[in-house]
Amino acid sequence: MTSQAFQDDRAHVFHSWSAQRALAPAVVVGGEGAWFWTEDDTRYLDFSSQLVNLNMGHQHPRVVAAIQEQAAALCTVAPSFGNAARSEAARLIADLAPGDLSHVFFTNGGTEANEHAVRMARLATGRHKILAAYRSYHGATTGSITLTGDPRRWPNEPAMPGVVRFFGPYPYRSPFHAESEAQESERALAHLDEVFTLEGPQTIAAVILETVVGTNGILVPPDGYLAGVRELCDRHGVLLICDEVMSGFGRCGEWFAVDRWNVAPDLITFAKGVNSGYVPLGGVVLGPRVYETFAERAYPGGLTYSGHPLACAAAVATINAMKDEGINERVRRLGEEVVRPRLAKLQERHPSVGDVRGLGLFWAIELVKDRATREMLVPYNAAGEAAKPMLEVAAACKAQGVWPFTHFNRLHVVPPCVTTEKDLSNGLDVIDDALDVADRYYTGS
Amino acid sequence: MTSQAFQDDRAHVFHSWSAQRALAPAVVVGGEGAWFWTEDDTRYLDFSSQLVNLNMGHQHPRVVAAIQEQAAALCTVAPSFGNAARSEAARLIADLAPGDLSHVFFTNGGTEANEHAVRMARLATGRHKILAAYRSYHGATTGSITLTGDPRRWPNEPAMPGVVRFFGPYPYRSPFHAESEAQESERALAHLDEVFTLEGPQTIAAVILETVVGTNGILVPPDGYLAGVRELCDRHGVLLICDEVMSGFGRCGEWFAVDRWNVAPDLITFAKGVNSGYVPLGGVVLGPRVYETFAERAYPGGLTYSGHPLACAAAVATINAMKDEGINERVRRLGEEVVRPRLAKLQERHPSVGDVRGLGLFWAIELVKDRATREMLVPYNAAGEAAKPMLEVAAACKAQGVWPFTHFNRLHVVPPCVTTEKDLSNGLDVIDDALDVADRYYTGS
Repeated sequence: MTSQAFQDDRAHVFHSWSAQRALAPAVVVGGEGAWFWTEDDTRYLDFSSQLVNLNMGHQHPRVVAAIQEQAAALCTVAPSFGNAARSEAARLIADLAPGDLSHVFFTNGGTEANEHAVRMARLATGRHKILAAYRSYHGATTGSITLTGDPRRWPNEPAMPGVVRFFGPYPYRSPFHAESEAQESERALAHLDEVFTLEGPQTIAAVILETVVGTNGILVPPDGYLAGVRELCDRHGVLLICDEVMSGFGRCGEWFAVDRWNVAPDLITFAKGVNSGYVPLGGVVLGPRVYETFAERAYPGGLTYSGHPLACAAAVATINAMKDEGINERVRRLGEEVVRPRLAKLQERHPSVGDVRGLGLFWAIELVKDRATREMLVPYNAAGEAAKPMLEVAAACKAQGVWPFTHFNRLHVVPPCVTTEKDLSNGLDVIDDALDVADRYYTGS
Repeated sequence: MTSQAFQDDRAHVFHSWSAQRALAPAVVVGGEGAWFWTEDDTRYLDFSSQLVNLNMGHQHPRVVAAIQEQAAALCTVAPSFGNAARSEAARLIADLAPGDLSHVFFTNGGTEANEHAVRMARLATGRHKILAAYRSYHGATTGSITLTGDPRRWPNEPAMPGVVRFFGPYPYRSPFHAESEAQESERALAHLDEVFTLEGPQTIAAVILETVVGTNGILVPPDGYLAGVRELCDRHGVLLICDEVMSGFGRCGEWFAVDRWNVAPDLITFAKGVNSGYVPLGGVVLGPRVYETFAERAYPGGLTYSGHPLACAAAVATINAMKDEGINERVRRLGEEVVRPRLAKLQERHPSVGDVRGLGLFWAIELVKDRATREMLVPYNAAGEAAKPMLEVAAACKAQGVWPFTHFNRLHVVPPCVTTEKDLSNGLDVIDDALDVADRYYTGS
């Protein structure tokens, strides 16, 4: 006995990133704050924020009202016109952005934002190469999937020419054999410097990186790393593109994660949290260098829905609600006072917890079979039978009403920024229990 | 004395396809049906449908209500879940699609739809090359801009490898020196056949084309052409991708323009008209060949907002309203009974009108300096001073309250499908007057 929604899904919906036949998607019918519920009346505490986008939680009344009001006034307008919602969203975002970033080019989401940021950087510098990190995700269109440093790139190659790969800092599995965060930062910068030298700095248009790496591990840059990258870029006239699609708008307890380290990129890309994904929206924040390139010469890019009024009205309401509710302060406090100490305890209690790391409400629990060797609980890019231990951990969370986010051998703790302290604590209790499942696969001593 | 919306736009909004400094966008504050108005209370009859997407006109009450209701119920959900709005939109679209097309992969717009259609075709066939037409537009991300056969591609090259160019039919400026529509069709097919032979048919994954070429000239395929392409593709195991981002959902008086010729592609891409752009939405309609490729193996593509509930609810309301209002029948009738005879008269009256062509509410008036030589009124890709005659034609339309769509040496007649017969007729009167401006540049005898 299945619902029409489920039947139509199985007969007619083709899902992202999935083998289609065996899917049996839970049909979501409603949500409020950090909770959502399915058609069989099961309620879940959302520890995934849908796809790490629902920063203000489900159905925030101010954002819902803003969408309804804009819908009543004017749903859409072509990108060549002016529109009050678009103008206000651009001003709010530009005012929040660091350094001399002044203008916003709106897109429909994160992948388009990265596509256009790369295009702007290439045309502003007259250079072609883009340096992008291993262990990164930048989107699924041809340019962005090429920038992506995870296996989702593989079936899509060869794609965009001119992308060169580098390693970013990852203290727990240091590509540089570093023994401290400071050493990791220093060696990661020396590595990037060497890649610059060997690629020819004058051929490099931009470095793109996730300020805090998201899906590929919540890799928080050691202090000094971003400033070092900025300095290296400046020395060679290379633009720095910070992808804040996942890390921006409250996730790290900052408007933009770069604020934590006081670094100003040349281009910031955003999406997701800007309006909690209530209406598709992304964009590029850019400064005078890019603006002046296209002041008298046409920018060769655009889209029908650029600066969509409905999406921009949702962004205005989201940003204003975040300000009024002090979301960034709240997220910083919950991160440091609740999540960090709780995850430290989980690490003490569960042998399978090799590493915990994060900031704000953006945390990873990295699971291993052996703490000494740091062998991953499931192999890199595991699928099918090999991925079973992680599927069981996820199932254990769901069985207790917490919807988790897992990737490879990691469980991410990425609830909405509006999650109550009690729900957050209860959700961490559920994860505590679910990690017993991971411990069963532990083979170390 | 300018408004806050205008000032914020100039200070903070980076616009599509434009040199930024000199822009002075009209600030749109409201609209209804085929009309919109700006902050200074000027009303315009919209002969551009914004960007040829507003098929159901501004602020259709059923679509606005559907957005408001869905916003109240549930704005968003991750793509891995099921959702009633998404399921229903997918079922409605699949039911309307020709042949064995059964499933919908939802994106945020047309460019992503084309990116994913190409990816699906490559992986389903195990081949790499994509054949794409000159005089086409497929979107602005790296893959789609490479498919694009107009100058917007140039500043973005080199982009995606594996795209091979062919010529489609264009009777008025035949690349094949044809002297009739039938000959144009036959020769265009012979040309494509030869490109297949010289590229190696077994290396070709797909042919992508706009069923009716949109921005690049409203080029309606001669009878027999699409069936011929379909047959050629079948003979060599090549997939046919029809880009219906602009031509679908009523624009041609059909759900999909291919219906006019009873041709079923392997993949159809759509956006714009599917919900009149009220919420960003696009997608790929696919059949068993692609579905089975990814039945047991993961499709390597996706996006956070795939099947966005708000966008899908708008699509459901749009499609149902189109059915109830008999939009396709209406558009076919207006196209044949009003627009076609009126444009024929304009061609008689104005020497600068070299050609008129189209169907439904999708028409081009091609302007020339000389009917004998067919020299374009402004050169291909003209900008600045060289483009002046067309800017003057556009200004003459606007001065009389009609917002036109122009491209190169053409004026397109692409009003919303809900435009009243009286407004349509009045708008054509305005174009009639504006063409006097074009006639002044006529140099032929």
